[in-house]
Amino acid sequence: MSAEWDPYRGDCPSRMLLDRIGDRWTVLVVGVLSDGPHRFSELGRRVVGISQKMLTQTLRSLERDGLITRTVYAEVPPRVEYRLTEAGHTLQEPLRALQTWATEHMDAVVDSRRAYDRVGGRLDR
Amino acid sequence: MSAEWDPYRGDCPSRMLLDRIGDRWTVLVVGVLSDGPHRFSELGRRVVGISQKMLTQTLRSLERDGLITRTVYAEVPPRVEYRLTEAGHTLQEPLRALQTWATEHMDAVVDSRRAYDRVGGRLDR
Repeated sequence: MSAEWDPYRGDCPSRMLLDRIGDRWTVLVVGVLSDGPHRFSELGRRVVGISQKMLTQTLRSLERDGLITRTVYAEVPPRVEYRLTEAGHTLQEPLRALQTWATEHMDAVVDSRRAYDRVGGRLDR
Repeated sequence: MSAEWDPYRGDCPSRMLLDRIGDRWTVLVVGVLSDGPHRFSELGRRVVGISQKMLTQTLRSLERDGLITRTVYAEVPPRVEYRLTEAGHTLQEPLRALQTWATEHMDAVVDSRRAYDRVGGRLDR
């Protein structure tokens, strides 16, 4: 860890990285790849509703950041597989924790939103 | 945890919640509030570069989701403080893990991006 990276500084690239890894599609795609290598079409099926364009962008960003590899097998038609790199594997745990938090707290969040909207956002104490 | 929430389903609200909590501003604001209650202006100073509008939106979303409270003290001028709720405190750990991951892996990510861009994104194996 470099002391130089600090996402609280406005100009630090780690802030953009933080954004990237917290992105819903990154969380879900890395989650699927945690099970092992997958092809593009399989990923698209598992992450319901992701567009082809968004899946392509997400995979390209992950590859550029060194978190997944893209392997092309010389078959007819060519088979392309995506898999987590060693660095990508280290991302699994924080992202899984985030996803678990979201599903575990969704009920409470829904209740809170209802209460907030009922009083028009005036929850001042 | 409700089995009904599944962010892999396109229509599940937990996907939006996942987006929200992974947002860079949420990560950074919750990080500051982990130290204790803060006023709006203090938050703006700590999270360098966040606009007033974005800070207002982030705080409002966090309040609506039940993760922070907004307390108005009857002083002149009125003092307004934001603090994490019990649910908000449970979010600290996953978000801190995400932030730690980003700063720890930033060097490797920068190297990977350089390599990727050098070959014009063709890292096929």
